[in-house]
Amino acid sequence: MTSLFYLVPAAAVIALLFAWIFFRQMFKESEGTPTMKEIAQYVREGAMAYLRQQYKVVIIVFIVLAIFFAILAYGFGVQNPWVPFAFLTGGFFSGLAGFVGMKTATYASARTANATMRSLNAGLKIAFRSGAVMGLTVVGLGLLDISIWWIILNAFVEEATPAQTLVVITTTMLTFGMGASTQALFARVGGGIYTKAADVGADIVGKVEQDIPEDDPRNPATIADNVGDNVGDVAGMGADLYESYCGSILATMALGASAFFNLGTDIQMKAILAPMVIAAIGVVLSILGIFVVRTKEGANLKDLLGSLSRGTNLSAVLIAVLSFGVFYLLGFDGQSGLPQWWQLSLSVLSGLLAGVIIGKVTEFYTSHSYRPTRKLASSAQTGPATVVINGVGLGMRSTAIPVITIAIAILLAYGFATGFVYSTGTLSLGLYGISIAAVGMLSTLGITLATDAYGPIADNAGGNAQMSELDPSVREKTDVLDSLGNTTAATGKGFAIGSAALTALALLASYIEELKIGFSHIGKSVLEVGDRTVDTLSASITDIVEYYDITLMNPMVLVGIFIGSMMAFLFCGLTMNAVGRAASKMVVEVRRQFRELKGILEGTRRPDYTSCVRISTRAAQQEMIYPSILAIVVPMLVGVILGPAGVIGLLAGGLGAGFVLAIFLANSGGAWDNAKKFVEEGNFGGKNSPAHKATIVGDTVGDPFKDTSGPSLNILIKLMSMVSIVMAGLTVMLH
Amino acid sequence: MTSLFYLVPAAAVIALLFAWIFFRQMFKESEGTPTMKEIAQYVREGAMAYLRQQYKVVIIVFIVLAIFFAILAYGFGVQNPWVPFAFLTGGFFSGLAGFVGMKTATYASARTANATMRSLNAGLKIAFRSGAVMGLTVVGLGLLDISIWWIILNAFVEEATPAQTLVVITTTMLTFGMGASTQALFARVGGGIYTKAADVGADIVGKVEQDIPEDDPRNPATIADNVGDNVGDVAGMGADLYESYCGSILATMALGASAFFNLGTDIQMKAILAPMVIAAIGVVLSILGIFVVRTKEGANLKDLLGSLSRGTNLSAVLIAVLSFGVFYLLGFDGQSGLPQWWQLSLSVLSGLLAGVIIGKVTEFYTSHSYRPTRKLASSAQTGPATVVINGVGLGMRSTAIPVITIAIAILLAYGFATGFVYSTGTLSLGLYGISIAAVGMLSTLGITLATDAYGPIADNAGGNAQMSELDPSVREKTDVLDSLGNTTAATGKGFAIGSAALTALALLASYIEELKIGFSHIGKSVLEVGDRTVDTLSASITDIVEYYDITLMNPMVLVGIFIGSMMAFLFCGLTMNAVGRAASKMVVEVRRQFRELKGILEGTRRPDYTSCVRISTRAAQQEMIYPSILAIVVPMLVGVILGPAGVIGLLAGGLGAGFVLAIFLANSGGAWDNAKKFVEEGNFGGKNSPAHKATIVGDTVGDPFKDTSGPSLNILIKLMSMVSIVMAGLTVMLH
Repeated sequence: MTSLFYLVPAAAVIALLFAWIFFRQMFKESEGTPTMKEIAQYVREGAMAYLRQQYKVVIIVFIVLAIFFAILAYGFGVQNPWVPFAFLTGGFFSGLAGFVGMKTATYASARTANATMRSLNAGLKIAFRSGAVMGLTVVGLGLLDISIWWIILNAFVEEATPAQTLVVITTTMLTFGMGASTQALFARVGGGIYTKAADVGADIVGKVEQDIPEDDPRNPATIADNVGDNVGDVAGMGADLYESYCGSILATMALGASAFFNLGTDIQMKAILAPMVIAAIGVVLSILGIFVVRTKEGANLKDLLGSLSRGTNLSAVLIAVLSFGVFYLLGFDGQSGLPQWWQLSLSVLSGLLAGVIIGKVTEFYTSHSYRPTRKLASSAQTGPATVVINGVGLGMRSTAIPVITIAIAILLAYGFATGFVYSTGTLSLGLYGISIAAVGMLSTLGITLATDAYGPIADNAGGNAQMSELDPSVREKTDVLDSLGNTTAATGKGFAIGSAALTALALLASYIEELKIGFSHIGKSVLEVGDRTVDTLSASITDIVEYYDITLMNPMVLVGIFIGSMMAFLFCGLTMNAVGRAASKMVVEVRRQFRELKGILEGTRRPDYTSCVRISTRAAQQEMIYPSILAIVVPMLVGVILGPAGVIGLLAGGLGAGFVLAIFLANSGGAWDNAKKFVEEGNFGGKNSPAHKATIVGDTVGDPFKDTSGPSLNILIKLMSMVSIVMAGLTVMLH
Repeated sequence: MTSLFYLVPAAAVIALLFAWIFFRQMFKESEGTPTMKEIAQYVREGAMAYLRQQYKVVIIVFIVLAIFFAILAYGFGVQNPWVPFAFLTGGFFSGLAGFVGMKTATYASARTANATMRSLNAGLKIAFRSGAVMGLTVVGLGLLDISIWWIILNAFVEEATPAQTLVVITTTMLTFGMGASTQALFARVGGGIYTKAADVGADIVGKVEQDIPEDDPRNPATIADNVGDNVGDVAGMGADLYESYCGSILATMALGASAFFNLGTDIQMKAILAPMVIAAIGVVLSILGIFVVRTKEGANLKDLLGSLSRGTNLSAVLIAVLSFGVFYLLGFDGQSGLPQWWQLSLSVLSGLLAGVIIGKVTEFYTSHSYRPTRKLASSAQTGPATVVINGVGLGMRSTAIPVITIAIAILLAYGFATGFVYSTGTLSLGLYGISIAAVGMLSTLGITLATDAYGPIADNAGGNAQMSELDPSVREKTDVLDSLGNTTAATGKGFAIGSAALTALALLASYIEELKIGFSHIGKSVLEVGDRTVDTLSASITDIVEYYDITLMNPMVLVGIFIGSMMAFLFCGLTMNAVGRAASKMVVEVRRQFRELKGILEGTRRPDYTSCVRISTRAAQQEMIYPSILAIVVPMLVGVILGPAGVIGLLAGGLGAGFVLAIFLANSGGAWDNAKKFVEEGNFGGKNSPAHKATIVGDTVGDPFKDTSGPSLNILIKLMSMVSIVMAGLTVMLH
């Protein structure tokens, strides 16, 4: 049965192979005119320069943390000896995925613009398949890392019983998620600050003060803006979802090892394999879906959207069907306390459906095809203040349905797995059900991430067409591609948030597992729980919960919830101000160039693009450090000071407030963006009307909401869990 | 010993007596010129008209809910038979306090303006003592209601043992808080929408479009704006704190009855009396403090602030000292499991100190004497978008210290009460400690609320002076009074939020107590907890927690946390949009008047004030209904569907996210307001510069943040607990 595991490295290799094929296909295309090549080169260089800077900072952080973990593991013996290495590989593969994705995106944009001259379908294909390179690289490298560690640890780890060995292996693997989280943190925060500093700065001086259009080559910040799309939306999003993807699989494995601990090694092993196998099948289905995406010439937005949806829906429906097969074949037959195969598959389905619903709701609240954004645009007639007020209100209201959806998905996933029996006895199994729902949601990441990474490529293609002063018909076509990208970006954000929430919940549950391992590292082999004595490695989740009194009346838990909620806001506030500061620097520089370098506005002289790129790069690099360190240090401190009960409170509070805050920020930002577009289409006075100026203020405010602070929260809620998981040993020693 | 109780009605009578004296003193003063009287009359009529409308809606809601509770109590027997009556008195007294406070404030503003002509000290004295009428009425009526019910229930309730009788009496009394909460909800939400619809509307057309100053009599919305200060800042704030005041005392009584259940009726009774006695002493000290507030002529802002602080500080220091005496006299001597007298007093002190620190932090983040707001003002130089982004960032960052302060206060209050022993055995006692910290924070409410209600009175005095076209020197003096009011309003908001958080925490804990009573109502006299059998009325908090598995791994709890967090955002979003819509209506009306009624702008014709008053009144009345019903219905539904574990999750999530969100909204709003004032003082270009226009946008955005949605959250977090408490019987019947 364990031979099923080899599906996983096989899927990894297939994913990477197709990523390579798609990359080569794209690379063979022409980049177009010399100007197009030049512009693309500028963007590529800027993006790579930034990535180098970011990796420099990240490498230092990784070295420091790896040494710290090594000291904990080898010096004090309070940590798993594999942690430093697992941590480093997680970070390395995540960084590699970001590098490949961004390299691809920066090669693809001019080629997309050029192909669009030929036909819309050709443009779509290049942009989308280049996005698929990112999607497949992420899932491929994720499964590769998982496979490698599975093989290594199976060879080296041996505990008293096979069941305990599996517990130790899976909880050890969980720690490589910390590496992915840390890498993702810097990618999201740094990338987010970079892109919005450039975007906000370019908009304030360009659109508002000088009345020149978006992506105009006369705007000195326009290259930085295009670079930003790549570092924020491609690399940042990729790292974020890489982490969710790996995190959900690893957490499910750990929870599986615990939930089926007493039912025999055979079924325990199957429960561990299930998430990996589902992910592996998801890779194949994603590739299938990618091939389905194509459109005919003269397609409008609806056709294009239909075409993308066909691909993602096909993959989603097939994985839903096949997951029944997986659990059936694995032999979950309802015997001896096991759930039936269809029970766990229904848990998977809950996750998948929740993802789809959250995506749709996001679209409803942020697309100007629907009432909320249209009403928001209408409120622009009374000025920027009412636009901002109503946009904030819209975003806050829009949190209701996604939260209720996730709540129902959690209860269903738990309920299906346990046969709707809520008792402490079925707790582990239910949490496994929730966790596998997250895996279900993320199983077709190969294609969903492709639709996401497609957006910035199409956006950059438009930018390239504009800056290269191609025939306006090209820009019109890329605009169609781009506005499709805006829709997929919005639903993609909803998806990223939803999956982050479920993953964080799975990590929260597996933190309890990690505490058990913590005990065994400090040599505590039995626990006194109430009047009973329990063997640590065999302890159930309920035992640990009782041991640390992780109830809602424990003041440690309550204080943890307060601090967790606060962390979400503090982290957002810091990144928001970082964008504000960096954007101000950009505004000053762009104003300076317009003032001092005569001829820019007349188009007789090229502005100094590189100085703006430098400002964004430096600002991102400086500003990402403080919030990032905070996100890593606070959970450590809470563990040390308040103990496991405080940590669980912190994670739950951070997850609750962070999830809702992230939806609010993403949807407010998306709605402002599209309200502006709605006015630009000629409503309420159209372009350059007072209403338009008001919506530009809204859009600018929304930039850091939706592209910096909001997405960074996805990382925060997962990273805090990961840090706590890695620090479990020290926490247990002190409490 | 129970004779100590009579201090409580005595204090109530004293408070009401001094309120009456201060009211008479103020009323004897002259209202000034005929124009001043006329303006004051307009505002008074508008305010009373609104209050009538609000009470009409509220009465319907109260009748419906009272019938519903009566059906639950008498029809199904799942509720305490006293609930419908307790509910109604809570609402009645809260409404009465709001009525008295607002009546006083609307009489006081013209008199303050008139007295200021004579001397600054005279103006301060009238405004502040009129604020004190509100403060003393709130605490007086609060203690009166508590006294009445204590006497009635002691006469009528008799259970199997005296200890059980006290448990039933205190948990029954808790339910009158639901009446106060419901009244406060409508006062805060309705008042908040009213005041900001008028303010935002007046500012957008007046200041931004027509460049006429604040409170200019030519602005048709200016009377509505002044009415709004009274209905929002006076009546709303009063109802909010009335609820916190009563809620904290009642919750402490209920927790005291439980924590000392097994230690003999004598000490149990003392633990119940302690919060009432501390509150009674606080009343006397508040009156003492009120008499200390005075200033000399030619006083500047710092002198005035010093004068107010002397009053509040004196009361706070004395209550801290006397609380040691109270517990000493009550005989908490550390014998037989009791805490020492100084332990509980240190818990009280923790609450008091936390209140002071949160107030100071609020001032730091929102006053333009400090860096954060100055930097925010500086960012106005790059336009409204950066002002909004940086203000949001500032508000989010500003949540850190208050949350950490409250967290430390919780741990200290718990720790002092239990001698820093964290175990399930000391849980009840620790929660009693937290609860009494809330009582400590609120004990001097008589004077702290006076400094708060003083603000809108001074603001209205300035408005009256401006509209009556008095000599500019009067407006200058009232401006000094007003800007003091802005500082006290900001710290007052911090105080209101902090006390709401502690009160909500106390209510959260006492919800568990209420579940016990719920069991006895449905005739369940014993519970099976694990392997043990427990008598329901004697069950400890830990027993109930174990019975319902209120741990953080229970999916009901986790789902509850998600929904609770979401509720805070949804509720804010609804109120935010309500203001946006109502303000738009106001803008349309004001624009219409300027356009159609010739001569308004030239000052040759009076605008139609009443139509604007009508718009605000109607909008507030319509818009408050939906969010208010949601706040009442959702906790009921969660109780019915998810059971007690889900409710506790809901309350904890709502409290965590709601508390932090409230601080963020209040401080962003306050900082924007003062950033505008900083620019108006001549910085970054001064009045009418682009930076000034940008800060006006910020200020307008901040209006609903700080005066509608933010403060309404205080109510939400308490009301959700109160609803759950009242519905506990039905919840346990179903689960």
